[in-house]
Amino acid sequence: MIETEEIERILKKYKRPKIATCCSHSSLQIFHGARLEGFETLGIVTDKNVKFYGSFPNASPDKLMKVHWFSDIVEKAEELVKNEVILVPHGSFVEYLGKALDDLPVPVFGNRRCLLWERERDRMFEWMKRAGFDTPKVKRRESIDGPCMVKFPGARGGRGYLIVRDKEEFDRKTQNAIKKGFITEEDVKNCMIQEFLIGVRFYPHYFYTPLQKQNYSTKKGSLELMSMDRRIESDVDEIYRAMGIGVVEDPAYVVAGNEPLVMRESLLPKVMEMGVGAVEAAEELFGGIPGPFCIETICDRDLKFRVFEISARIVAGTNLYPNGSQYSAFMFNEEMSTGRRIAREIKLAAKAKRLADVVY
Amino acid sequence: MIETEEIERILKKYKRPKIATCCSHSSLQIFHGARLEGFETLGIVTDKNVKFYGSFPNASPDKLMKVHWFSDIVEKAEELVKNEVILVPHGSFVEYLGKALDDLPVPVFGNRRCLLWERERDRMFEWMKRAGFDTPKVKRRESIDGPCMVKFPGARGGRGYLIVRDKEEFDRKTQNAIKKGFITEEDVKNCMIQEFLIGVRFYPHYFYTPLQKQNYSTKKGSLELMSMDRRIESDVDEIYRAMGIGVVEDPAYVVAGNEPLVMRESLLPKVMEMGVGAVEAAEELFGGIPGPFCIETICDRDLKFRVFEISARIVAGTNLYPNGSQYSAFMFNEEMSTGRRIAREIKLAAKAKRLADVVY
Amino acid sequence: MIETEEIERILKKYKRPKIATCCSHSSLQIFHGARLEGFETLGIVTDKNVKFYGSFPNASPDKLMKVHWFSDIVEKAEELVKNEVILVPHGSFVEYLGKALDDLPVPVFGNRRCLLWERERDRMFEWMKRAGFDTPKVKRRESIDGPCMVKFPGARGGRGYLIVRDKEEFDRKTQNAIKKGFITEEDVKNCMIQEFLIGVRFYPHYFYTPLQKQNYSTKKGSLELMSMDRRIESDVDEIYRAMGIGVVEDPAYVVAGNEPLVMRESLLPKVMEMGVGAVEAAEELFGGIPGPFCIETICDRDLKFRVFEISARIVAGTNLYPNGSQYSAFMFNEEMSTGRRIAREIKLAAKAKRLADVVY
Repeated sequence: MIETEEIERILKKYKRPKIATCCSHSSLQIFHGARLEGFETLGIVTDKNVKFYGSFPNASPDKLMKVHWFSDIVEKAEELVKNEVILVPHGSFVEYLGKALDDLPVPVFGNRRCLLWERERDRMFEWMKRAGFDTPKVKRRESIDGPCMVKFPGARGGRGYLIVRDKEEFDRKTQNAIKKGFITEEDVKNCMIQEFLIGVRFYPHYFYTPLQKQNYSTKKGSLELMSMDRRIESDVDEIYRAMGIGVVEDPAYVVAGNEPLVMRESLLPKVMEMGVGAVEAAEELFGGIPGPFCIETICDRDLKFRVFEISARIVAGTNLYPNGSQYSAFMFNEEMSTGRRIAREIKLAAKAKRLADVVY
Repeated sequence: MIETEEIERILKKYKRPKIATCCSHSSLQIFHGARLEGFETLGIVTDKNVKFYGSFPNASPDKLMKVHWFSDIVEKAEELVKNEVILVPHGSFVEYLGKALDDLPVPVFGNRRCLLWERERDRMFEWMKRAGFDTPKVKRRESIDGPCMVKFPGARGGRGYLIVRDKEEFDRKTQNAIKKGFITEEDVKNCMIQEFLIGVRFYPHYFYTPLQKQNYSTKKGSLELMSMDRRIESDVDEIYRAMGIGVVEDPAYVVAGNEPLVMRESLLPKVMEMGVGAVEAAEELFGGIPGPFCIETICDRDLKFRVFEISARIVAGTNLYPNGSQYSAFMFNEEMSTGRRIAREIKLAAKAKRLADVVY
Repeated sequence: MIETEEIERILKKYKRPKIATCCSHSSLQIFHGARLEGFETLGIVTDKNVKFYGSFPNASPDKLMKVHWFSDIVEKAEELVKNEVILVPHGSFVEYLGKALDDLPVPVFGNRRCLLWERERDRMFEWMKRAGFDTPKVKRRESIDGPCMVKFPGARGGRGYLIVRDKEEFDRKTQNAIKKGFITEEDVKNCMIQEFLIGVRFYPHYFYTPLQKQNYSTKKGSLELMSMDRRIESDVDEIYRAMGIGVVEDPAYVVAGNEPLVMRESLLPKVMEMGVGAVEAAEELFGGIPGPFCIETICDRDLKFRVFEISARIVAGTNLYPNGSQYSAFMFNEEMSTGRRIAREIKLAAKAKRLADVVY
């Protein structure tokens, strides 16, 4: 992983940082927010999307840098630095760059070390445990004794999940998936078997700032609840419409969109404490998570939360709230999206000459 | 129940009323709205939530009054009056205080008599009938002849509901629940058996003002449609995701959150007429319901509404709209939440020296 | 169909056009938007809804024209022209007027020819094919070899749909429906049998302007993504809540409301291209579709879109966004609803003396 000193050296030369990201995932929101905070923006865009990303007067980047694939960013590092950009990572950004992000000699908003922890399943579980979260039970093939979700390695966008009730069903369904070419024998060895959880999914979106202890303070900074969403997955979230024609045996869990919701107010203090847990565990484990993050939870019938993932960057659910949310209204006088909050953080850090605290 | 004269005596001494409520349910919205209307606010908060309620610059109360339990409010009555507060009741407030609210010598927004009618099932049905609502059919154990919902007395947050199809299933499931300690024999005697309704749930949020006849007028005042929501209950609202693993036999109906929606415009005139029905029946039965209320409906495939409950106070679904809703935009030039509308009503009433018409 | 020249002749005499529509469907949004753009408004209202439509300070029409049935508009044509109105068509408007709209001697916003194509199923499919859309497979009774949706002619508001898996089920269910009087033998002959699609429904709302090529340009104008929604149908969208009591065999698909959602950003370029497909096919087939339209899609587990309908006018899903949407924020500095966008288009066209390009 690139040295922090090297990034700091680059940052010191920046006179007027631009905000940049890959044109996908939550980039319109990021550009929109950056413009509202007075930043110039640069969008890294694949050829086929040039027209689309040029068509939003309030959200199109000031400058488009064309690439064939997002992974070409690596070769554009010098040009990006010349443009004085700070890269804002998001889900697609992280997925497409993969490990190439570790050494990329371009300043990245947040702590790029966290993406390492997001990427590897065992580390993710260590982080969640350290944060004090209730996580779904993990099983071995032999110990499957009730509904379980089988997840295969790598980002397959929710296609590779299987639901099984016992080891026979596990064998049958995995063999079937191998035959169809969806997975390999190797994938089966490396799959994760989790108990199937029933309850309501809530994805709270947080923003952590190390710049000041105020409002909801943590050991070293403070935490803000920006908004929340529920993912809409195809086809599992509409299979009930097909109930009359028989049960869809293996629904897919491919994220297609997001819908807004709010949570019972009496659960919010717990949500904030979970956020603090994630922040402080991150500080202990890998130096912290300045910026946006999200905890993927399921709230069961006893109103207990189970956490099955942390996203250590902006999530697509924030796209519901480019004009602020039900929760941001309680914090901010402006219509504050997560994208705009990122830009504001960079502005505040630059002003306080603490850019290196929120960029790496 | 405390005399109206006593409350009026207290109100007369108030020079600059504050808005107060228990920190839970919809209190952030209430404080946020009160601040926007220029009120000072006081939050009654349990020890463990002090940090949380102090962390929202635009929604934290100006002053926090700590209690161990919300029921301790009774002992704080004098202090509350000294602070010149008008209490805004909400769901948790009503649930925690119970009958203690009847005699509480502190001004309460709205007509506290209505809470009596909300609390008792038979009165609730009388109110709904008088309002002209189509209500679900109520059955006795012997007459169960199709899917029914069995509701047990007391607020169990939706845990205590059972679905049964005939008296055998009723016996089996209630015995089972007794064995598990969820309910008592007494509860079974006092349960309510309602036909199970299928359709889309809509919870329209109304505000009734007796201060003037304008816009959508009723006999004595006027009615506003503020917003609407649908509740998200754990785990019944996500059990379809478990379809592939077999049916969840007894889902729970515990409210975990709320989601926004709008209704077909051609149904809105009917919604307003239902609101008027609730208002005018309330006037006949117990003197009216100034302030916010909600009608819990199910809209069936023939677009007919069945009403299964009235909430005679602000509901948590309004938390979706701290910045106003799809409907409030048609009424107000400001971003008008129900919380803010309450504060504005107090302001208007105070100005017109008619506080006693909206506070008791 | 009335001559364009006749409408142009009428338009030329207008000094200060008013915006008018039937009071239903999305009319509050249309009036609200028209007022924000400085137009006077006229509402055609049925007797029983006069009170309701008079009760929204920011959305009630300036003037109400009472009718017994919306079809009485035909006799009011002269009066409407005297009032200098431009009629904005919406779903109920189109449904109630039917073919009477073709010859109505009153200026109508958009291209009234498109309603012909929306009305007739074969033409609709021709349009969708020409637009390059993937449409659901259409079957004959004999070739039903898996779950299919059977749709009967005419607007039955989603009541007339049947789900069948083979020709035996087709025969049984259609015979049953005939017996119950829901449909006739004639309807069965004219029904459409479509493969049943599983996936997430997205209804993107577009606005096409022929007035200028800017932002997202098409051959002759430009296309804007205003918002999107998902319909809530009673009772199919809540039948999962009844899972525990057995499957509801023939759910109904009656639209009762709408809920907001956003789409995965990486799918949006495809959504814009689909919109362009609809616009350019419309130009080839019947002279174009200036104004709002909607494509009804299902996004499957492979994130492929299937289109099963085009609505060539404002849809009710836009009622979610009277204050603008997640997408309109990227285009407009004002809170831009589709209703307001219509009014603005009329304003811009009038200024450019090109009213005839957007009104017919």
